[in-house]
Amino acid sequence: MKNVVIGIDLGGTNLRVGVVNAQGKVIHERLVRVGGKRSQRDIVSLIAENVSMFQCSNVSGIGIGAPGIVDFKRGIVISSPHYPDWHNFKLRDELSKKCGLPVALDNDANMVALGEAFHGAGLGFKNFIMVTLGTGIGGGIIINGEIFHGDTGFAGEIGHLVLEFNGRKCDCGGKGCFETIMDDASKNWKNFGRRLGAFLASLANVTGIFSFVIGGGVSNAWGNFIHFAKKEIAGRTYKETAKRIKIKRALLGDNAGVIGSAMELFKTLKPQNR
Amino acid sequence: MKNVVIGIDLGGTNLRVGVVNAQGKVIHERLVRVGGKRSQRDIVSLIAENVSMFQCSNVSGIGIGAPGIVDFKRGIVISSPHYPDWHNFKLRDELSKKCGLPVALDNDANMVALGEAFHGAGLGFKNFIMVTLGTGIGGGIIINGEIFHGDTGFAGEIGHLVLEFNGRKCDCGGKGCFETIMDDASKNWKNFGRRLGAFLASLANVTGIFSFVIGGGVSNAWGNFIHFAKKEIAGRTYKETAKRIKIKRALLGDNAGVIGSAMELFKTLKPQNR
Repeated sequence: MKNVVIGIDLGGTNLRVGVVNAQGKVIHERLVRVGGKRSQRDIVSLIAENVSMFQCSNVSGIGIGAPGIVDFKRGIVISSPHYPDWHNFKLRDELSKKCGLPVALDNDANMVALGEAFHGAGLGFKNFIMVTLGTGIGGGIIINGEIFHGDTGFAGEIGHLVLEFNGRKCDCGGKGCFETIMDDASKNWKNFGRRLGAFLASLANVTGIFSFVIGGGVSNAWGNFIHFAKKEIAGRTYKETAKRIKIKRALLGDNAGVIGSAMELFKTLKPQNR
Repeated sequence: MKNVVIGIDLGGTNLRVGVVNAQGKVIHERLVRVGGKRSQRDIVSLIAENVSMFQCSNVSGIGIGAPGIVDFKRGIVISSPHYPDWHNFKLRDELSKKCGLPVALDNDANMVALGEAFHGAGLGFKNFIMVTLGTGIGGGIIINGEIFHGDTGFAGEIGHLVLEFNGRKCDCGGKGCFETIMDDASKNWKNFGRRLGAFLASLANVTGIFSFVIGGGVSNAWGNFIHFAKKEIAGRTYKETAKRIKIKRALLGDNAGVIGSAMELFKTLKPQNR
């Protein structure tokens, strides 16, 4: 019986490849640098090479999270800031052909959210919003235990929620997006925490989703900012909302993407193939 | 065959009651002032009285949109700024008992969104966000043709998305919510349009929902602000997002709430009762 899958978290710098069982346990894992060869063909080859190194005969398929704007339905990376040469890259089908396995593709931040939903801090939440605080802001919205994709798969670009109409210029072309405050995070935790709170209050008010899972490197300084964030949320929501807000730290760390990608692939399998 | 329902839009000032058929046509309508008697019992009596005046024998039930925080599942108005004495008011069951008819209750802004979804500008959109620009901001999120309620029914408080972290004080207790700019709308249409654009860009980036229906009194000045809004959206979203944004004016005007409430009740009926 085929009972494991490959979960892949492709970043701008690193490629993380894991063998994951149906219980979400990472049995083997490889972390490799992507390096300078970044064309579509190079990346497919690099992934295939690292997948084959596991020499598993019982692999049912591959789940992969990729950075950038992903059309999960068509299995295409439309564009990616880390891979400027990629345009409408059919990553799912190319990888499937190269490895001879079914492949599930989604945005990397969505896969992280799914990992936490199945085997991390999201367990027990029917709906939640995953917030990854790093150099940039990653986001994923889980509704009824599934990734919410919006119209065409671009949902969860939460870092580009405007928090300061006339704020600093953002990489997206806009101004004052929440993401623009990340530079200041470790310089003034109070300022950062308060802005994080206003951001979470906005998300709660708009979506009516009151549970949040927060991960990413900056979340390691949890004690420095979370009380400022919680106080700010209480000041920016109705009390009926404020008392329902739940915030948890992510549990899976750097493995969340690998586990989430694996879970996404498991979901596509028919029971007899597991 | 019972083939019409009563749709009700309860506001802070007016009560609008309509007889609506399954095609969303308002056959008869009454508009009455709520006046000074605003207790739970007074409002149930006022509604029942106006429903009975239609003297219809073929009414299947009542749909009602009420202002404030509504728990649609339990049929309760948790609180309402216009009716300060209401706390956990079982409006659905009280009205059902008084009128002897099944009742469906939801937030008024959600009912407006549902009206536009079934018989207005939302037709053809699988997902869209309804924005009502008035003294306050109403909002409703439609996903797969249904109202999205979030965890407990409070979704769509989009007026309390923060647009200026240190902005003006808002009735919700917060600062710089989108709703706080409505006072300035007619004074400077460029300022208003640009802020509306930043607001819509934020919503699109977070939710991945790219279709918007805009109604409310301020939307009558459409030509004064919409080009500023569209330009601002383009500057605050990735181009893949920007080119997918669709904005339509609401079509149902003041009838949207009555029609949406009626449609919500129709949805609860089993086919043989229609």
